[in-house]
This record gives sequence, C-alpha cells and structure tokens, in this order.
Amino acid sequence: LWEEDFDRVYELVEPLHPADIADLFELVDADERPVLARSIRDLMGVEVIAELNDWVRELLVETLPAEVVAGFAGELDTDDAVAMLEDLDEDNQRAVLAEMEPEDRAAIESALSYPDESAGRMMSREFVAVPETMTVGDLIDFLREHRELPTEFWEVFIVDPMHRPIGTCVLSWILRCPRNIPLYDVMKREQTLIPVDMDQEEVALRFQKYALISAAVVDTSGRLIGQITVDDVVHIISEEAGEDALLLSGAGDGDINEPIRDAWSGRVRWLIANLLTATLASAVIAMFEDTIAAMVALATLMPIVAGLGGNAGTQTLAVTVRALAMNQLTPSNAWRAVRREMSIALLNGGTVAVIIGLAVSLIFGNPMLGGVIAAAMMTNIVIAGMAGVLIPLALERLNADPAISSSVFVTMTTDSMGFLVFLGLATMSGLVG
Amino acid sequence: LWEEDFDRVYELVEPLHPADIADLFELVDADERPVLARSIRDLMGVEVIAELNDWVRELLVETLPAEVVAGFAGELDTDDAVAMLEDLDEDNQRAVLAEMEPEDRAAIESALSYPDESAGRMMSREFVAVPETMTVGDLIDFLREHRELPTEFWEVFIVDPMHRPIGTCVLSWILRCPRNIPLYDVMKREQTLIPVDMDQEEVALRFQKYALISAAVVDTSGRLIGQITVDDVVHIISEEAGEDALLLSGAGDGDINEPIRDAWSGRVRWLIANLLTATLASAVIAMFEDTIAAMVALATLMPIVAGLGGNAGTQTLAVTVRALAMNQLTPSNAWRAVRREMSIALLNGGTVAVIIGLAVSLIFGNPMLGGVIAAAMMTNIVIAGMAGVLIPLALERLNADPAISSSVFVTMTTDSMGFLVFLGLATMSGLVG
Repeated sequence: LWEEDFDRVYELVEPLHPADIADLFELVDADERPVLARSIRDLMGVEVIAELNDWVRELLVETLPAEVVAGFAGELDTDDAVAMLEDLDEDNQRAVLAEMEPEDRAAIESALSYPDESAGRMMSREFVAVPETMTVGDLIDFLREHRELPTEFWEVFIVDPMHRPIGTCVLSWILRCPRNIPLYDVMKREQTLIPVDMDQEEVALRFQKYALISAAVVDTSGRLIGQITVDDVVHIISEEAGEDALLLSGAGDGDINEPIRDAWSGRVRWLIANLLTATLASAVIAMFEDTIAAMVALATLMPIVAGLGGNAGTQTLAVTVRALAMNQLTPSNAWRAVRREMSIALLNGGTVAVIIGLAVSLIFGNPMLGGVIAAAMMTNIVIAGMAGVLIPLALERLNADPAISSSVFVTMTTDSMGFLVFLGLATMSGLVG
Repeated sequence: LWEEDFDRVYELVEPLHPADIADLFELVDADERPVLARSIRDLMGVEVIAELNDWVRELLVETLPAEVVAGFAGELDTDDAVAMLEDLDEDNQRAVLAEMEPEDRAAIESALSYPDESAGRMMSREFVAVPETMTVGDLIDFLREHRELPTEFWEVFIVDPMHRPIGTCVLSWILRCPRNIPLYDVMKREQTLIPVDMDQEEVALRFQKYALISAAVVDTSGRLIGQITVDDVVHIISEEAGEDALLLSGAGDGDINEPIRDAWSGRVRWLIANLLTATLASAVIAMFEDTIAAMVALATLMPIVAGLGGNAGTQTLAVTVRALAMNQLTPSNAWRAVRREMSIALLNGGTVAVIIGLAVSLIFGNPMLGGVIAAAMMTNIVIAGMAGVLIPLALERLNADPAISSSVFVTMTTDSMGFLVFLGLATMSGLVG
C-alpha cells in the first residue's frame, strides 16, 4: 500500500494515538519499516519512539544519524531518553551524547551512572518540591508562575532545607483546601521513599503493594533527586510478572521482536543444558538394559512415569516461583509451603497412581506390573513436589533467580528418579525374570 | 508470641502500613490468624481487609457474622466491597447485603450485575464530573465546597448535559491555570473511554498502552457511570501477566494461599489429561517393540529425543503465548512469527543434532546410530517449533485461552513424534536387524 500512495497512508495514520502508531510500526515487516517511517515522517515524533518495543527501537535508532537521535533524546523525558540510549553500543552512545545540549547530556550521563534496571535509570528529574513553610495559596501561585515546571504531575513533595522529603501532598487535597492552610497541615508525613539504587523489580513491588501513583527517589544522603510515576512502573510490573513463564521455559527474553540470532543463542544454551541432564536419565536407563531386554513393555511404560513426574514438578515449580516473585513466600512460611505441596503431591500422586495402576493391570493382564507402575508413579510425583518447591527455595537462598535455572534441575530429578524407581522396582520386585 | 502477650504484639504491629499488616496476616499459619486478629482488633480496619489475598480474605470473611461484614463493606470503596463479597456463596452474600445501608447495597448490587472480571466490577462510583461551562476558578470553588466528593482523584471529567464525557483535565493543568480560563480551553478532548462490560484484561492493556492514571467508564448509551484508577489496575496487570506461567504448567490459580482441595482438583485434571496423551506416546513405542528388543540402546536414547523436543516446544510456546497476551501477535503478523520460529528451530535443531550425533557416534562406536538420532532430533525440534507457535495461534483463533491447554497438545506432539521419528528411522534405516 504505502509504496504507491504516501498521502493515503498519511491520512490513515494521522488520527492515531502515538502508542497505536508504534504498534503499527511493530506489526509491519522489518524491511518495510523505513518506508513507513518515511511516508509518515512528521508523525514519527518522540512519543512514537518512546512507545516502541525495545528491539524495534534499537534497530531503528541504529540506522539514524547521531544528531537526529540526539534531537529525539533532547525532547524526551530523561527516563525515556535513557531507555533509548542505554542499549546502544558505547561508540554510538558517545556520538549521540556529544551532539546533545550540555544540560540534557549531564542528566542522561548521571542516569547512566546508576546500575542497569535501578530506580536511578527509571526516575524522571522533573518534579515539584516546595518548602513546608508555604500555604496552599502560595503553592497554587508558585505553580501558576513557574512555566518551566513539568506539565503533568500527581503529587507535590514537601522538602526540608536540606532538600530531604518530609511529606507529600496529592493534588486533589491541595485543590480541596482553602488558600490559607499551611502545607504542613495538609501533607501526609508517611511516604514510601525509593532509594536511587533500588532494583526496578523491587520498585514495582512497592508501587503495587502501597498502591502508589508517584514516589520520591532519594540519594544515599536522603536528598530528593527524582520521582517515579506509576505509568513508568506498569510496563515493568507486566514484564517482571510475564518473564517467569519465559524464564521457566528457558526462552530468555522471549520477545517476538528479538533478532533471530539472539533468540537462538538465548534458547540453545538451555537446550544444551537439558541435553546434559537428559544424558543422566539415559545413563539411569542403561543400568537396566537387561531388565528392559527381558520385558520390552517396560520401555513402553517408563516415559509415562517420568513425564507425569515432570508435569507435577513443573506445576509446583510455577506456583513456588510466582510466590517468591510476589514476596508471598519468605523463610518464615517456607516450611508451611513445603508441607502444603507435600499434601497436594500425595493427593495428586494417589489419584494418578490408582488410575495408571488399574489401567496397566487390565490392559497388560499383569497386576504385578500395575502395582509396580502405581508405586513408581506415587513415588515420583511426591519427589516431583519436593523438587518443585525445594529447588527454587534453595536457589533463592543462594541469591540466584529461581525462575532461570530451576526447570533444568526439576526435570533432571523427575526424569532420572522416574526411570530409576520404575525400572528399579520392576527389577527388585521379581516382576522380570 | 501473641498467645502470651497481646499488648506486645499490638505495639509491634501498630506502626505498620495496612498492606504490611495484611502481609503479616498471610504469613502466619491459618489457625493462628483468628488469634492475631483478636490481639490487634482495632488495627484490623477495612484497609487491611482490602489488602488481603483473596483466599485468605474469603476464609476470614466466612467466619465473621453478616453484620460485621456489612459494616466493613459499607466503609470500603465500592470496588473493594465488591471484591470482598463476590466470592461469598449466594446465601451469605444475601445476608450481608440485607444488613447494609440501602444506598451502599444498591451500589454493590449494581456492580454485581455486571459480568465477573468486567470493568463494571472494578470501577469506583466516586468521581468528579463537571459541565464544560465552568471556569478553572469555578471548579476550584466547587471542589472546596463539596465535602462529599472523593478525597483522592487524579482527573476531573467534563461532561455534556446528557452526562456523556467530552473531555478530561488532569489536576496539574487545573492548578497551573489562571482562575478565569474556561475548562473547555484546558481539557483534553481525546480520552480513552472504558465500556462498562469490557474485560479486565483488556482494561489493563489499555492502561498500559496509553499510560493512563484514571479513565472514565461509560454505559452502553455513552453516559459516565464510574471511573477506574491505575492503582486498581496494577494488581490485574501483574496477575494477568503472571498467570501465564501457572496456566502453561497446568497449576490453575496457583496461589500459595489456595486451599489444598482446590489446588488438588485444579492440578490433577491436567495430570490426567497428560496421562492420556502420554498413553498415546506409549502406544507409539509399543509399535516398535521388536526394534527395541533387537537393540535395547534405543530405549536408552529415545527419551532424549522426546525430551529435547518438549523443551524446544515449551520455549516457543511461552514466547507465543506472551506475545498473544500482549496483543503483539495478531493475524497480520502471524505468518512472520511462524517463519521466525522456524528459523530459530532450524538453528537450535542443527546445533543440538550435531552435538548428540557426534556424542552418540563416539560413545556407542556406531556412526549409523549417531546419524539416526541426529536426524530424529533435528526433525523433532522443527516439529516442536511448529507446534509451539501453531497450536496457541489456532486456540486463539477458536477463542480459547492459548495459555490454558496448549501445553498438553504441544507435549503430546513432541513426545509422540519424537518416539515415532527416532524409532521409525532406526527401523527403516536398517540400523537394527
């Protein structure tokens, strides 16, 4: 369409919200994006850039000359400009920073000096802070007179002479009070302060827990240096909550806009890790080659025991990882969670063992084989439940992210133990030979 | 501790934020909760109730007499009261509603008349709406005079005489404008309206996409009937994003506070579904019993092919389900996503096939066996990639939630095809016999 008729495209795109233009941009094929960008050039404003998916933006920004990127960065809020620049390689980053106004450059360089994914990277340096000596009327006059203040803010921070936050006023309280009331009578003294080096995941949890709209960011000496607003936190909440499914499956970042090479290297390392643990399960089977040779039906049934154990383990794992991520599971109730998962494993194991035991007894006409598979299934599902809760708890205790590597260990356990218990019981019970 | 010394407990709990008291409540054992509640009775206010986990609250509310629950419901905002009452069984719900003030009861009954998980359940009926004829000064005076207005709000909605929203003013714009400016010069005309029957997941996506702080809820004739604020949306964003990991694993609701019986019935149905699909894989193996009897090493190696395929399929599945949930994947770019996953599958399959092929050739001293397992691995990983993207896309097209049942189908495919291709190739290649 757009190859032929630039004006028509422009007309269609013009009434859209920047977030929708960004979506459209992501939906078209990578090689059509520059054409689309050209046909709607003056609609491709900074708001659209800010809304783009990280991967799509990175590809686009890399193709633009440094001075154009610097122009965009100058117009964006500090947090959005940082998001755009932090993924560039060092040379490009330096080239863009060199093209920027000294003041903007300083703000971005200072943001980049904080650790990746910390509050310092997310915060905006534009906020309203006033001394507690002001009245409501003074504040309203101050806001009307100072044109350089941010246009959208939700809270006014009250600071002491050292610029340390001592209270906060949401705008609706200010609007509803008579002009002569002093701010120290209106402000709320308890507030959630965000240390500048706090991890973004922790910031997101605080916003969720205390239902915050905005919060003050303080440096190590307690001075107010920025604010974080909830609209910058919602996509982090969504990312952090959604990444567990991706991490548990070993799919890395798992964004459909991630370049194929990155997706390959992110995923193949987990496949290779699983290959190694699968070799362990193979070695277990190899120990019982004589048993299998004597009764090939065991080879037919053994994947059921291992597979169901894997399923039960993954269920427990998903619940445990989610509870850990939400801070619902802490050392103080870990023991209760373990007991709970054991009870569920006994119920699940019992149910599945009865079904498979009866089915195998009937189909193979061999109650002994039915008994062996039922006992193995019960045992493996209980082992799976234990592994599914203890492995992530142990990784968390070791300060590793339980979502990242738990799956490999749980699958290793349920596969190896499934084969070991089933083939071991079959051998020992005298079923074979 | 609290058994002995109520005062000491009270002292410790008193300075905490209601959200922290709610957390404490969840952390102690279920049978200790009533004791804790008694020892901090007057701190157990409605804010704490509102912050409690759904399951914990349901258990607590069920033990309280209807008039106490009615008292809590009367003090809570409509949306929190609805959240508390919607999970009660019908008799309890009716008993509580009968004890409430007529006005509160009407508000809750009207909220309960909307579908579960819709905007009508989430919205608050307290909001500020004014006609466009007001000036900034009129509005400030109106807010100062009307004591019954909500204390915290972020936006004022401008409505026409039919009470239909025509614009919106965030409070910071109002505070920064001189008193004589008419609202129709300040207000933003484009706004995101939420239809009252919209699903909460869709509401959450809109808030995320357009970075909303609050939004007007309208009925079918376009009249303003409520508002939704972002603090009520963040926990939905987090739940909806986090539930994919739980649903993919077949763990149902997966909350660690869910009663054991519910967790059991939620999980065991997926284990039974997997049992049925595992039987299919077993039937595939049974077809090759003679081949296995002739070469038991095949039984040792076959779980590796099936397992790695399962892993690769789960990776693709997690990425696809996430992209569908975020509206990143639509019919217009589905074909691109399929091609992308095929490319990744070819790269992953190639890498893993080379490793396993060489390893098996060396360890078993049988290059033919190495070639067969490499070919089977390559084929199964490509099949896994296809299943991982096509199955969730098909379920989505059929209006089923792809996160719920995709896993079963993908695992069924990768297991059965893994065994079929590996044992089939081993038979046909003349490796055996």
